[in-house]
Amino acid sequence: MKKIEVIQNVLEANETIASRNRQLLTKHKVFAINIMSSPGAGKTSLILQTLTRLKDRLNIAVIEGDVASTVDAEKVQSEAKAVVQINTRNMPESCSLMAAMIESAIKDIPLDNVDLILIENVGNLICPAEFTLGEHKRVVISSLPEGDDKPIKYPLIFIDADAVIINKMDLLPHVDFDIAAFRRSIAGLNPKAEIFQLSCKTGEGIEKWCSWLSGQVKGNATKQ
Amino acid sequence: MKKIEVIQNVLEANETIASRNRQLLTKHKVFAINIMSSPGAGKTSLILQTLTRLKDRLNIAVIEGDVASTVDAEKVQSEAKAVVQINTRNMPESCSLMAAMIESAIKDIPLDNVDLILIENVGNLICPAEFTLGEHKRVVISSLPEGDDKPIKYPLIFIDADAVIINKMDLLPHVDFDIAAFRRSIAGLNPKAEIFQLSCKTGEGIEKWCSWLSGQVKGNATKQ
Repeated sequence: MKKIEVIQNVLEANETIASRNRQLLTKHKVFAINIMSSPGAGKTSLILQTLTRLKDRLNIAVIEGDVASTVDAEKVQSEAKAVVQINTRNMPESCSLMAAMIESAIKDIPLDNVDLILIENVGNLICPAEFTLGEHKRVVISSLPEGDDKPIKYPLIFIDADAVIINKMDLLPHVDFDIAAFRRSIAGLNPKAEIFQLSCKTGEGIEKWCSWLSGQVKGNATKQ
Repeated sequence: MKKIEVIQNVLEANETIASRNRQLLTKHKVFAINIMSSPGAGKTSLILQTLTRLKDRLNIAVIEGDVASTVDAEKVQSEAKAVVQINTRNMPESCSLMAAMIESAIKDIPLDNVDLILIENVGNLICPAEFTLGEHKRVVISSLPEGDDKPIKYPLIFIDADAVIINKMDLLPHVDFDIAAFRRSIAGLNPKAEIFQLSCKTGEGIEKWCSWLSGQVKGNATKQ
C-alpha cells in the first residue's frame, strides 16, 4: 500500500497548491482556463485564434506546457501580454502540468495587468485529468481525425470539463466522425459541458467560443 | 528525495518483469511488438490492417490497452487468434501499459499456437516511453493531422522506437504536415528507426509495413 499512499499525497499536495493559485488569481481579478487535449488536437491553434479575436478587449497571458521544446511559446509570443514556457521533461510527472508549476509560472506574469491566462497543458488525455492547477474553467479539445470514441475511452478528462471543443471541423468530409454520437457520449458523461464545433484553420465557430469565453471572464472579475 | 526513490523502484520492478516476459515469449518463439501513439493516431486501424494481411501466414494475438472500454478489443476480435483487453483506469499508472499487466495478459494467450503478439498501448506519447513490456520491437505511429512537430515535443518515445509510422497519408492534401521536416527530426533523434508512410484507410503503404514486420518475426523465431 506504500505506493498508493505516495500517489495520494501527491494529489493532496497538488490540490492545496491549486487552491492557493486560484485564490491569488481571483484576488488579482485574473481568470484562468486550463486547455487540455491529445497531442496535435489544436491547443496552440485555439490559443492563437483566441488571442487574435480577444487581445484588443482583454489582456491575455499564456502559460505553455510541453514535455520538451519552446515551439508553442514562440508561436504565441508576439500576440500575448506575457508568455511562460514550462518544460516537464525532467519533472517527476512529465505527462501533465501540476499546480506547483503554475505557482512558479505566475510569478513571471504581471497579474495586475492581465485579465485572462490561457494555460496550455501537456498533450495528453489521461494525466491532466488528475491535476487541477488553480484554473477557473477546464476545456478539452477533441479533433475530428482522432475519432468520435475518445469520450468512451478517456472518460475522466471529459467528465470534469466545463467546455468541450470539437476542432478541425474543416476535415469533416475527409474523416469518419459521427458528431451526433460524440455529442451523445458527452451528454452521458457530463450533461452540463458546453460544446463548441469549430475549425482553428478556417476560423469557423471561433466567434461563438470567444464570446462564451469573454462572458466567463466578465462574469468572474473585471479589473475596473 | 523520497518520491524519486519510489518512482525509481517502479521503473526497476517494471524492467525485471519485462525481461521475464521477453524470456517467456522467446522461449515459446513468440514475437511481440509494442504499438504506441497519441489517442486516435491509428493503432487499432494498423492492427486491423496487419491482421487482414498476415493472418493467413501467422497466428496473431492482440493485447488491447485502454484506460476504459472494450471497443478496440471488439473491433479486432473476429480477426485475431486471441484478444486480451487491459483497462488501466483503476491502476496506479493509468497512462501506460506496464510489464506486470502484460505478464498477466499472456497467461490468457495460447503461446504455443501464436507467432506474433500485437500490443496496443494506451493512447499517449509520454508515459509508454518509460515502461518496457517485454516486447521485441517498439513502434510509434504519428498521424498527419497531429502535425510534424511531435518528435520535437515528445522526443523520448521516438528515440527508443524501432519503427516510426506516418499514418493518415490520405489526408496530406488537407492538412499542413511537412514530411521532410518530420523525417529530419526522426533522423536527428534516432537514425536507425525504420520509417513507413501509409494510410490505414486506403491501404496505401501497408504491404511494405507488413513485409518488414513478417521479416522481423521470421528473423526472431520460427515455430517449426
